[in-house]
Amino acid sequence: MPDTHAPHPAAAVSESRLWDRLMEMARIGAIPGAREGEWGVNRPCLSPEDRQARRLLIGWAEAIGLAVSIDRLGNLFLRHEGSDPTLAPVLTGSHMDSQPKGGRFDGIYGVIAALEAVQALREAGLSTRRPIEIVAWTNEEGGRFAPGCMGSMAYSGFAPPDTWDDIRDSAGIRWADALAQHLAEEADLPRRPLGVVEGVAPFAYLEAHIEQGPVLERQGIEIGAVTGIQGSRWFSVEILGRSDHAGTCPLSLRQDALQDAIRAITALNALMQDPTDVLRFTVGRMEVFPNASNSVADLVRFSIDFRHPDDRVLQARGNAIEGVIQAALKSCDYRLEERFHARPATFDAGIIATIEGAATALGLSHMRLPSGAFHDAQFLVPICPTGMIFIPCRGGISHNPAEYAEPAHCANGARVLAQALAELAAR
Amino acid sequence: MPDTHAPHPAAAVSESRLWDRLMEMARIGAIPGAREGEWGVNRPCLSPEDRQARRLLIGWAEAIGLAVSIDRLGNLFLRHEGSDPTLAPVLTGSHMDSQPKGGRFDGIYGVIAALEAVQALREAGLSTRRPIEIVAWTNEEGGRFAPGCMGSMAYSGFAPPDTWDDIRDSAGIRWADALAQHLAEEADLPRRPLGVVEGVAPFAYLEAHIEQGPVLERQGIEIGAVTGIQGSRWFSVEILGRSDHAGTCPLSLRQDALQDAIRAITALNALMQDPTDVLRFTVGRMEVFPNASNSVADLVRFSIDFRHPDDRVLQARGNAIEGVIQAALKSCDYRLEERFHARPATFDAGIIATIEGAATALGLSHMRLPSGAFHDAQFLVPICPTGMIFIPCRGGISHNPAEYAEPAHCANGARVLAQALAELAAR
Repeated sequence: MPDTHAPHPAAAVSESRLWDRLMEMARIGAIPGAREGEWGVNRPCLSPEDRQARRLLIGWAEAIGLAVSIDRLGNLFLRHEGSDPTLAPVLTGSHMDSQPKGGRFDGIYGVIAALEAVQALREAGLSTRRPIEIVAWTNEEGGRFAPGCMGSMAYSGFAPPDTWDDIRDSAGIRWADALAQHLAEEADLPRRPLGVVEGVAPFAYLEAHIEQGPVLERQGIEIGAVTGIQGSRWFSVEILGRSDHAGTCPLSLRQDALQDAIRAITALNALMQDPTDVLRFTVGRMEVFPNASNSVADLVRFSIDFRHPDDRVLQARGNAIEGVIQAALKSCDYRLEERFHARPATFDAGIIATIEGAATALGLSHMRLPSGAFHDAQFLVPICPTGMIFIPCRGGISHNPAEYAEPAHCANGARVLAQALAELAAR
Repeated sequence: MPDTHAPHPAAAVSESRLWDRLMEMARIGAIPGAREGEWGVNRPCLSPEDRQARRLLIGWAEAIGLAVSIDRLGNLFLRHEGSDPTLAPVLTGSHMDSQPKGGRFDGIYGVIAALEAVQALREAGLSTRRPIEIVAWTNEEGGRFAPGCMGSMAYSGFAPPDTWDDIRDSAGIRWADALAQHLAEEADLPRRPLGVVEGVAPFAYLEAHIEQGPVLERQGIEIGAVTGIQGSRWFSVEILGRSDHAGTCPLSLRQDALQDAIRAITALNALMQDPTDVLRFTVGRMEVFPNASNSVADLVRFSIDFRHPDDRVLQARGNAIEGVIQAALKSCDYRLEERFHARPATFDAGIIATIEGAATALGLSHMRLPSGAFHDAQFLVPICPTGMIFIPCRGGISHNPAEYAEPAHCANGARVLAQALAELAAR
């Protein structure tokens, strides 16, 4: 039971305000869904829609007195001041960009729930000892510029901030150019140092998110206290062939990049066999050149997304990828690049206990579970006590316009977050 | 030996003028090649580059007194008047559009060689009984809008002129809209009836082209008298899956459109086995949606280009495609559409003999050979005596910036064409 003498931070959380903001935000980059009243979101990182969404968030934050700033990766911060402004802040948030055919909750829920939690603290008249900062990380999804989590990786010092400068989106635009343009358009916002690289580490990091899997819904549990995140390795592959005329060139003489890409992926499917169905192996992106029906392909690019919670599997299978591709090719050459490699992450036991305590105090059912998906929280683990709060989502469906979370579940997550933030910021 | 009493039409063919025009034309839509001094062409059908190329051709034609007109498919005609303008004309030409990574000779050679041949006839002071019309067919390649040969198919009545109205290019532009825009921009050119549908059949059709295969070069032969064209069937396939999060959705629960597309193509490879290496099977175009590295693909589109000179093989294997795809899919649905079906075509024995006679008269080595590639000439076969003249190309390479034909070989083809046109137009 919560202490009845202290102001109750979760009591001021408004389910309808939270929901209305989620739906208003989801109009930015809206794309049609399959069912009546359902829609999704296409809000690529650093796109006009991304900027419009950030401005909407900033408007809400300024209206309740939060201080806005951005760093040189475009990470956006909204600060609730503490009674001792010199203390390291409690950090909470998520991301605002979406997959090309994304949903209305992935990422943005964690940002708007954080705003709701902080607004509830303020409305409850609760002053906190430590500052609380809400963050919207730049490019978590990696849908436009791979890999994802560039903002949090740079913030935490996981990778130098110029690591991705020459990466291009499918229109050929360089990451560095897109970021420079974005920063120019947000030049009116105060600039802040970049995370632990140029500033100080946060006191703790908490991220609320939809589960993006079916576990909580199937078990009828309201809150997930996340134990950690499986490891991920991302690769990009180029298969280099020779273009020929589809009508004249005998098959035996071809260097058909598409056929060799198919051989490579078929061989990788065999490498990635897992009877326990824990391993995740996805080829989600493929581009064919010149991509004409009567020309043999001279170049195929494809992505590999490989994840596993066991570091031994992640290392051994991941390290076999190049050899398997090399052996599978019949007539083409290849280039392989590992774009991203994150080992499995384990969240802080104290943060997990804080989340469980908050849920218990609010009378919400809860369970521990690992995250199948990848999150910015992963990169905060090395620099501060870190944890995540999951809420159920319908059918476990995500990265899809059919993604959906109940308004009551969304509010529950914000209440647990408010409670946990109040506790952490009091320390 | 040519009749020394008649003007010699081939004598006025200028190798340097023909070559200079080819190279000037190849500057429009030029793309880099792999070697010094070598370049290719990207001149999509109905693009600004296509229009620029047509204007360049029209300028050359008007300068020597040819009459310009276009029909409602955008097919462009340049007419050399006959002494009896009421007679059916001899038609000759090819196309001006290119593959996305095309060469400097495919198609455009047949148009510029025709202009050179007609200019040579005029400069030799040879008046012809029949008119000669040079044609540049619209959209032979099918690289931007599939299938190709729309202009010649509509001209010959093979398909109604509105057949392809709703076909879209990869930017989503409808064929009918692109064509309407093109016709609006060429509204200054006199309009003519559409081929045999609205007008009369030509007396004969002759098309000069690079071989796009290695036979003439390997055998050291200067002129190919083409016997016919293999049959083609083009299909487009859609594999319909469900998008899911690459990190959370177990592989066993996925409907991964990319993986099922790979299963389908692998099964088609088995169907298309041919130890004699005569069969041509190409998947040259593939598009993946949403095409993000961490989203399971919910839609994959790919093309099938299948060709064979034996109609029994073309029918039996082509008719098996749908069943083989259906059987190969594990979890997705599919849609299959046959975009194009052309049976093997046999050229006119009299035209073949005329080409051989012209080559012999000019002292050029020649041989009969079939065409592995597809040409507009195919659709003229049912409506008039039709034939093709091949010249050698380096390494048999085509649909590639490395495509190359010797200036002397180009001139040989124009000389044979001039001689054959003079003979046919005298009948």
